[in-house]
Amino acid sequence: MTKPTVTAAVLMIGDEILSGRTKDRNLGYIAEYLGRIGIDVREARVVPDVEDEIVAAVNALRARYDYLITTGGIGPTHDDITADSIGRAFGVAVGEDPRAIAIMLERYATADLTPARRRMARIPEGADLIENPISRAPGFRIGNVYVLAGVPAVMQAMLDFAVKSMKTGAVMLVETIAAGSLPEGQYGEPLAAIAAAHPNVAIGSYPSFRDGRFNNQIVVRGKDAEAVAAARRAVEAMVAELSGDAVAR
Amino acid sequence: MTKPTVTAAVLMIGDEILSGRTKDRNLGYIAEYLGRIGIDVREARVVPDVEDEIVAAVNALRARYDYLITTGGIGPTHDDITADSIGRAFGVAVGEDPRAIAIMLERYATADLTPARRRMARIPEGADLIENPISRAPGFRIGNVYVLAGVPAVMQAMLDFAVKSMKTGAVMLVETIAAGSLPEGQYGEPLAAIAAAHPNVAIGSYPSFRDGRFNNQIVVRGKDAEAVAAARRAVEAMVAELSGDAVAR
Repeated sequence: MTKPTVTAAVLMIGDEILSGRTKDRNLGYIAEYLGRIGIDVREARVVPDVEDEIVAAVNALRARYDYLITTGGIGPTHDDITADSIGRAFGVAVGEDPRAIAIMLERYATADLTPARRRMARIPEGADLIENPISRAPGFRIGNVYVLAGVPAVMQAMLDFAVKSMKTGAVMLVETIAAGSLPEGQYGEPLAAIAAAHPNVAIGSYPSFRDGRFNNQIVVRGKDAEAVAAARRAVEAMVAELSGDAVAR
Repeated sequence: MTKPTVTAAVLMIGDEILSGRTKDRNLGYIAEYLGRIGIDVREARVVPDVEDEIVAAVNALRARYDYLITTGGIGPTHDDITADSIGRAFGVAVGEDPRAIAIMLERYATADLTPARRRMARIPEGADLIENPISRAPGFRIGNVYVLAGVPAVMQAMLDFAVKSMKTGAVMLVETIAAGSLPEGQYGEPLAAIAAAHPNVAIGSYPSFRDGRFNNQIVVRGKDAEAVAAARRAVEAMVAELSGDAVAR
């Protein structure tokens, strides 16, 4: 029995990513994390701190994928508008959540629960809270949307909690074959033939460029272990042959 | 006379970014680069190597922003399907471009121009070429869409060429005020009041978390130098007062 495919999208919310001021480190982390447990990230978007943009992206992505993970915009300042935007996307009210206030009172004395901090307890109606062991103020889940912080350390801690309520599918198996300085232009044709002969896997070729030289890696991805192994062997044989190793040995 | 606002979106094409295998370094670079010359990046997306997805994203984004920059998928292997996808998005044929072949013959002997390498000369009809000083195979521009490589060094060299044909608007001015360990929850309310009193700028608060401590920065962004300076002074005064500096002095 094969496990189903479970999909997700990631929505990063914040002007600071679109200005280049903050270099996003969340997408790669979330993609790897979910991939390891059998959830395939299929799309990602970055939108500014503009309610209409957040609402449109949330509704487009939550309709299309099993899960949507958002990052950013749930802090105590005026530019943190994610909770209100999510409420609008779902057509539900957003109010101060007594559960969130109770959690925050574990960290803050009542006198220190400023109006700004109370903003962090604004949660859309019907949402479940997501624990935040770092700074307490929780994220939340509503429907298939998981709303996490943007600060990487906090996001990562919230993700550990969030995934507990996600269903998972077959894990994507990944095999990487080093092609070294063998040029893509030389192996492109035989690699296309291998890809055509192995339709149950996805094969990608990834060059990197450092110190004036290209270094290439070929990646085989798939959910069927035998299919992945067969494709990997075919790629390895091709690389060895083109590198002259097959002859040399 | 105020300069107009010029907008752009960035579309990153590639399974490897959505799997987390490759951590994107292009968005931040492009966002900063375009920001410096007066083009505001307003949205970014990442899609997999799937033609339907690329076509849909290209058509959504090119209709909405002055420019669309794409990265990735223009190499010589079978998984490089950006040129064909762009051709379909524009409804034009994609064929081997004699100008691109001529450029590639500067690097490769005719005998080395393998079918795989010739794939890199497939350019949508009506496109202009974008120079690639690193590895020659060009990018291209069609309409308001600029199609660049995914390898950062190559993308960066292509971007230098690409921006020459872009119109630019007023540059976004950015002022960063260090709030240090002053908690967002303490300054959230007065900062919201400052933001409300300075409607011609955008004010953001950005926490980072390291070694168990939050470190906060407040950023003022806008296109009117006087408005940005006034908001910056207001933020600085608030930070000084809350930090006790105003009293200490």
